[in-house]
Amino acid sequence: MRISVDQFFLDRQSGIGLQAQLREKIAEAILSRRFTPGQRLPSSRRLADHLGIARITASLVYQDLVADGYLNAAARSGYFVAPDAPGLLASGKDIPANKDETVDWNNWIKPRVGTMRLMQKPKDWRAYPYPFIYGELDSDLFPHDVWRDCARRAWGKREFDQVAGDFRNSDDSRLIDYIRSHSLPSRGIVVGPEQVLVTMGAQNGLWLAIQLLAAARPGLRVVIEDPGYPDLREALKLAGCQIIPVPVDDQGLPPDLIPEDVDLVCVSPSHQAPTGATLPMARRRRLLQLAEERDFLILEDDYDFEMSFLRPTKPALMGEARNGRVIHVGSFSKSLFPGLRLGYMAASARFIEEARCIRTLVIRHPPGSTQRTTAHFLALGHYNAHVQRLRQTYRKRRGVMIEALGTARIDSLGASEFGGAAFWVEGPKGLDATQLAVDLREEGVLIEPGEVFFASEDAPKNYFRMAYSSIPSERIAEGVARVARHLGA
Amino acid sequence: MRISVDQFFLDRQSGIGLQAQLREKIAEAILSRRFTPGQRLPSSRRLADHLGIARITASLVYQDLVADGYLNAAARSGYFVAPDAPGLLASGKDIPANKDETVDWNNWIKPRVGTMRLMQKPKDWRAYPYPFIYGELDSDLFPHDVWRDCARRAWGKREFDQVAGDFRNSDDSRLIDYIRSHSLPSRGIVVGPEQVLVTMGAQNGLWLAIQLLAAARPGLRVVIEDPGYPDLREALKLAGCQIIPVPVDDQGLPPDLIPEDVDLVCVSPSHQAPTGATLPMARRRRLLQLAEERDFLILEDDYDFEMSFLRPTKPALMGEARNGRVIHVGSFSKSLFPGLRLGYMAASARFIEEARCIRTLVIRHPPGSTQRTTAHFLALGHYNAHVQRLRQTYRKRRGVMIEALGTARIDSLGASEFGGAAFWVEGPKGLDATQLAVDLREEGVLIEPGEVFFASEDAPKNYFRMAYSSIPSERIAEGVARVARHLGA
Repeated sequence: MRISVDQFFLDRQSGIGLQAQLREKIAEAILSRRFTPGQRLPSSRRLADHLGIARITASLVYQDLVADGYLNAAARSGYFVAPDAPGLLASGKDIPANKDETVDWNNWIKPRVGTMRLMQKPKDWRAYPYPFIYGELDSDLFPHDVWRDCARRAWGKREFDQVAGDFRNSDDSRLIDYIRSHSLPSRGIVVGPEQVLVTMGAQNGLWLAIQLLAAARPGLRVVIEDPGYPDLREALKLAGCQIIPVPVDDQGLPPDLIPEDVDLVCVSPSHQAPTGATLPMARRRRLLQLAEERDFLILEDDYDFEMSFLRPTKPALMGEARNGRVIHVGSFSKSLFPGLRLGYMAASARFIEEARCIRTLVIRHPPGSTQRTTAHFLALGHYNAHVQRLRQTYRKRRGVMIEALGTARIDSLGASEFGGAAFWVEGPKGLDATQLAVDLREEGVLIEPGEVFFASEDAPKNYFRMAYSSIPSERIAEGVARVARHLGA
Repeated sequence: MRISVDQFFLDRQSGIGLQAQLREKIAEAILSRRFTPGQRLPSSRRLADHLGIARITASLVYQDLVADGYLNAAARSGYFVAPDAPGLLASGKDIPANKDETVDWNNWIKPRVGTMRLMQKPKDWRAYPYPFIYGELDSDLFPHDVWRDCARRAWGKREFDQVAGDFRNSDDSRLIDYIRSHSLPSRGIVVGPEQVLVTMGAQNGLWLAIQLLAAARPGLRVVIEDPGYPDLREALKLAGCQIIPVPVDDQGLPPDLIPEDVDLVCVSPSHQAPTGATLPMARRRRLLQLAEERDFLILEDDYDFEMSFLRPTKPALMGEARNGRVIHVGSFSKSLFPGLRLGYMAASARFIEEARCIRTLVIRHPPGSTQRTTAHFLALGHYNAHVQRLRQTYRKRRGVMIEALGTARIDSLGASEFGGAAFWVEGPKGLDATQLAVDLREEGVLIEPGEVFFASEDAPKNYFRMAYSSIPSERIAEGVARVARHLGA
């Protein structure tokens, strides 16, 4: 039985090479049993004519699939689907999902879905013309070619063995070198290699630190900023910590509001999340002094630290502390892109050693390829150049935002003295910013309602965040105007 | 002040392009402040002469570094290190590490380092001529070019936005499609998209499952195979589970030895880790029946399932179970390479939903790039072709191993009926295999001592594992002979 040429088609607009496309289509048809073992394929000439491609292209695909065991070639009679094509060892049976379940999951799981309060953003946010959202890649600002080149180097045969290996107890040495010699020193931190751990973004660093401490002190008493980073708060809840929210003002966390008997203080001193406030020197010193006097530790989320373009940034808290009490967490996910999932933790060697141990059981280690690709990007100087460009763009956008917000008479609070990537806005009393976000979405505008940042479930509803990290300058004025119209209504 | 050309050198053997190398060297020198702001660089002509490269190459590097802000160009007088080169905003101070620490970490951390019993292998295992070790890439068997091509596609500008995004609540749809339509069906499992979660390798899947169950039932009573997979045992300990080791025989876990009152049974039915035994059908049915009768769950580690080359593999336990009691964990890390860190979990939709929730707080999601690269590799049919090739090679190596072990009169136990990648060996009573491994290492032979696989700390010391997944056939006989000489001694 011959497979008709009508079964074949190519998409010339797809950007994928015709040869690769054809191979994929045939392999896919065999694997899904649309083409069955023993069936004869059209001759390469007929197929090429039908698809309007060179005959050699069709031939090469066939030969390639023969080499890989999908097709058999019979002299003079053509190509046939192999009876033992890879992946055809067992065929799937149609098992109806979820039908005969006898498990009462309420006995087995403490539900978090539905109780966790996290930020939401539409997956298709790029389809909206006015996306005032934070933490996503602005694709136009990213040096794609250079990144791809670094990835190509990382996957090169020379480095493959190292990138592909199971390096449970160690991280990519080039990445660690760079973090130690550049990333951390630029934050005023100098540490030995035994004091750094590569993590799956900042979230993973925060989580590992919490997990480690909560295991030794069940019911760990933890101060968080209010409003603060929701995913940190939820991670603390998951670990069974006792959460003590302390209200932040326009200078960030006031150390003297920290109660007497706490174990851990979580703080984002560079740019407080979400207000953007930068912790002044006096508060930093006071915080470090209290940590020493009262024997607590500090978990520093060096949030958004690269985006200091108005003035040179202040060094990180850990840079000021000699006493080992600060656990420092940083990330490349924000300045590069969030899907990279790469960050680092710096702390006392003893702490890092134990965190590495837990990391091994949870994920082993961040993938070798993302570590090595990033290491190349950093070492070649592309990262700093990219961050410089981001800063220039953000500085400009920030100017446009300030003007637009002024025109629209929208007041922003706690603006960072160093820059940042967002404004925290207090709307009029009585505003429901969550509803506002829903309404604005209809008009192509995305804002981030502030409710989720507050620790209490009956949080004030009139705050929201407007980031300028993913919206082009020329769209800002109109986007802000649309927000203002809704606020005025 | 001019920088001398003597400061510049290139490595023509490094395999890295001269232009990229030169850029890296200059950027690195600026970032490390070896070249300081204001210093003048050699003219491109002098530099090119010195290095023996084309003048255009030197010029291009200089222009590139000007564009990125590392150098300034002054008309007619040349290139200078920019005073505001990226990354020079703050310089590192030399903070002596660990000196003034005031934290007594014993009050803060429950130490695991030193108490955890995990497998060890030398980082430079490739330098040993006879590596009978498991779970690493055999670089000669891997289709590097094809993989690199898939990575190039994944990083292409067309797909970049998706690969780079923060897709917290979802996984790469192409990867999920493939796992659902091919990977799982080939194991007899058909599930909906809401029943699959992408994980950071099998370890991460096991860990998420344990974490979820242990949070709801503190002191979860868990049966493990003895000997069994050490990293699972340690993850259970970390989660505070009560561990009940059940001895395995040459047919794997005997269900009737499972005590009455347990919550979870962890099992590796395809190829028991480390013995390689395959659980017979009767035991599988009995295990599922007991789970139903006594209301326990089963955590299935579908360990080494691809390596069934002697006979078609048995379907996974989850494929037999309609009652939702089996949580299935699989991995691409073994068949591709461990540094990839990619696997999946399949289970009841309710369970997956909650596991995804925890994953969000721990790592957010596995990196978009590894998911998409793997999805391309799978969809193009390269994965199945690669596994086929591995199977052929392993079949051959297994034959050579059997002959060599026979000649050497080394008995292996519990060999899998389907294949696998290793032999589990019982040495003579009185043997200390841990010491044997140390002695053999001196002679270029790596074996895996068995002690660490046993739950009890005073485990039998006379077992070891010899894998053939990373040693070429022609080295096997001599390697086994060296082991035999030591056993005889």
